Amino acid sequence: MTSLDAVLAQADANLDASLERLFELIRIPSVSTEPAYAADCRRAAEWLKDQLAALDFDATVRDTAGHPMVVGHGPKVAGPHVLFYGHYDVQPVDPLHLWNTQPFEPSLAPQPDGETYILGRGASDDKGQLLIFVEACRAWKAVTGTLPIQVSMLFEGEEEAGSPSLGPFLEQHGDDLRADIMLVCDTDMWDRETPAITTMWRGFVSEEFEVTTADRDLHSGMFGSAARNAVQLIGTIIGKLRAEDGSVAIPGFYDGVSELAEANRQEWQRLPFDAEKFLGDVGLSIPAGEAGRSVLEQVWARPTAEVHGVWGGYAGEGFKTVIPANAGAKISFRLVAGQDPARIRQLFRDFVTALIPADCAVSFKSYASATAQSMPLDGELLTKARHALTAEWQRETALAGTGGSIPILGEFKDRLGMESLLIGFARFDNRIHSPNEKYDLSSFHKGIRSWVRILAAFSETEK
Amino acid sequence: MTSLDAVLAQADANLDASLERLFELIRIPSVSTEPAYAADCRRAAEWLKDQLAALDFDATVRDTAGHPMVVGHGPKVAGPHVLFYGHYDVQPVDPLHLWNTQPFEPSLAPQPDGETYILGRGASDDKGQLLIFVEACRAWKAVTGTLPIQVSMLFEGEEEAGSPSLGPFLEQHGDDLRADIMLVCDTDMWDRETPAITTMWRGFVSEEFEVTTADRDLHSGMFGSAARNAVQLIGTIIGKLRAEDGSVAIPGFYDGVSELAEANRQEWQRLPFDAEKFLGDVGLSIPAGEAGRSVLEQVWARPTAEVHGVWGGYAGEGFKTVIPANAGAKISFRLVAGQDPARIRQLFRDFVTALIPADCAVSFKSYASATAQSMPLDGELLTKARHALTAEWQRETALAGTGGSIPILGEFKDRLGMESLLIGFARFDNRIHSPNEKYDLSSFHKGIRSWVRILAAFSETEK
Repeated sequence: MTSLDAVLAQADANLDASLERLFELIRIPSVSTEPAYAADCRRAAEWLKDQLAALDFDATVRDTAGHPMVVGHGPKVAGPHVLFYGHYDVQPVDPLHLWNTQPFEPSLAPQPDGETYILGRGASDDKGQLLIFVEACRAWKAVTGTLPIQVSMLFEGEEEAGSPSLGPFLEQHGDDLRADIMLVCDTDMWDRETPAITTMWRGFVSEEFEVTTADRDLHSGMFGSAARNAVQLIGTIIGKLRAEDGSVAIPGFYDGVSELAEANRQEWQRLPFDAEKFLGDVGLSIPAGEAGRSVLEQVWARPTAEVHGVWGGYAGEGFKTVIPANAGAKISFRLVAGQDPARIRQLFRDFVTALIPADCAVSFKSYASATAQSMPLDGELLTKARHALTAEWQRETALAGTGGSIPILGEFKDRLGMESLLIGFARFDNRIHSPNEKYDLSSFHKGIRSWVRILAAFSETEK
Repeated sequence: MTSLDAVLAQADANLDASLERLFELIRIPSVSTEPAYAADCRRAAEWLKDQLAALDFDATVRDTAGHPMVVGHGPKVAGPHVLFYGHYDVQPVDPLHLWNTQPFEPSLAPQPDGETYILGRGASDDKGQLLIFVEACRAWKAVTGTLPIQVSMLFEGEEEAGSPSLGPFLEQHGDDLRADIMLVCDTDMWDRETPAITTMWRGFVSEEFEVTTADRDLHSGMFGSAARNAVQLIGTIIGKLRAEDGSVAIPGFYDGVSELAEANRQEWQRLPFDAEKFLGDVGLSIPAGEAGRSVLEQVWARPTAEVHGVWGGYAGEGFKTVIPANAGAKISFRLVAGQDPARIRQLFRDFVTALIPADCAVSFKSYASATAQSMPLDGELLTKARHALTAEWQRETALAGTGGSIPILGEFKDRLGMESLLIGFARFDNRIHSPNEKYDLSSFHKGIRSWVRILAAFSETEK
């Protein structure tokens, strides 16, 4: 029996104990955005620190301006040094009446198809997803007395609150956290059977803007036609934002945007993705993005502009014939590699400002931004992880993109120069952030086994 | 002394008594939109009936589905038969704390410039404006024992609630109300010194529409670019509504619209109207209507489209990267003579529908509409009234337009075939519908004298 086989057997044999530890963690209601749960957040951090200490990690709970961080360093061994990142905080549970079980009283719910759901807030996001890595390390430690590579871990408690303390923490503790690569667990499998590594994610820039026309709302009987209408103006701006062909019509927006690499295109072509179903599942059938590009390319590899909300004038019951003097909108741009968020923000502002008549005004409010990233598909560790996942799941690992943005990874890249591997075992239907969140028991079990294999693959002794 | 001079002297001598009657009427809180004041509305109607009865009118209070109407017929004498229209109901008084006096306790407030304000809800709109006509009739009656022409009056109690009972009432009592012309008092002077007859008003069509894209709100990280965004869609529709040159871009919208008649153009050219000040007073300087047309033409003689409100997606604090699945807007069109409201509604719906992608949907909700009207400037009674006003105010009477709409006049025109003369003595700063409504004592006094003169001018015995 190789040591890998022995460690996998150890993980299998201790699954119930691993699950009990997940239940313990879920029972701590570490809701980061609600001040009433601050002590619980600290309790979750302490609990994690204790788990790492039990694995002979040099583990500490470190204060921040918000909820604390947990940092742990495993035994110094040969091979690559990985920094595993997860977060112990969870989303609020409202509306509570939509839950079928108590969110902080985890339970198992067998399903007709043979799967078992682990129910509870955080079961998937991110307590289940992070604990499987800890449990993989525990199995290695139990069998071999150490870990196959050098492992550090960082758990934050404010991910669901936008990670306000992460940047300052990296600034202060960067040298203590730097490793060869980040492992990030907060992602999905491709489908129920197919493991995935997310190799590309979009950045974003978010803005709010408000236009002002007259110095008060006017009556359309008196001023209609002659007085500039703020809602008409903001409609005109929004209307010009995207061209007939679905592209973003801001001059310079596509500067620096490359065509999709051939390696990604080939990977994506073999992915079982049904664009018709993807749109059909939400009641649509006509892709709204750039004409001539596939839906996957539109959502993963192409930048876009989306208006998230608009307001202005009278929106209540009945009718008021007002000419609104103010109107606003919230908008964000999803970016791809090659686009600088600050430059895109300025291009947008220039675009809007040029559409404002000389007697009107516009104000802008900055919200968050993040840089896009795209990993080369032939990296050594990525390739090793891919093979390890394929071995566990007996399915070719998907090298996928995501249209979403992962701002914290930009922080690690910008401040510490670290690239990331995104490997997670959540499934599309896990209802994260919603009532009745669940994590599949198979995600949990095979997730532990997957990390056991990846650690083996990364070690120099395993080929 | 001619009888006209005697009647004017009578009006002057009895000004205090006239004013006391106005105070009595203001003290009745006849707020039509608040059910708690229903008995007060009836009390105001009874009060007016009693006033007319005292002038030997055949006066009745007539029930409707809402608040009652007051109908009065004066003595049958030779000459044209006029139907004077006014309304005894008033707007609500909220917010009460912004009033400097009690809204239903009228008072006189001398001003530094020598004017005196009559303060109270309805002082101008419409109790003051309607009572001056009654007081003019009273002066004629006192001096000559009768009236110089045949006068009927109609006072409604739901004007501030949209006149829901007026159409059915005209349907039922049309034969009893038909006269040679309507006199309508609910309008302004041109400026403090210049009397005005409003000869042209715009119609309107009001609509609400809502677009639906996906069957739920989506996350822009997952669907951004590929899924149709309802706010983007409604922005595109609003943006296309008006062309760069300020015109309405709906195909067929201007069919049947005539150029301004030369007579109106000449009248308007001599009106002391300062377009720069008109816009400057509300913080604007660039006319937003059709390029190449004067501001007066834009607001009085040209149709337009105005968006009164828009909604969709997330408009609260902070940021949500949602792709909204629903967005809506309220819009109205101001129309001019030659445009059929029903046709314009359909053109708008066709225009919007053509912009909806095949996998999305739009729904429409109809609100009110009204036909535009434009009086010939050389009508016999209009000319007589004009000269009478000029004689009283010693200023050339303005023959003005208004960009607003007067739906009830469409009812009289459509159902009874009656044209209207709009003569009122309100001033721009009367704060109607707002706290601290006032009517100038000079409007009241010279308003009575103006109506005395107009009745004289209309009579065949006066030249």
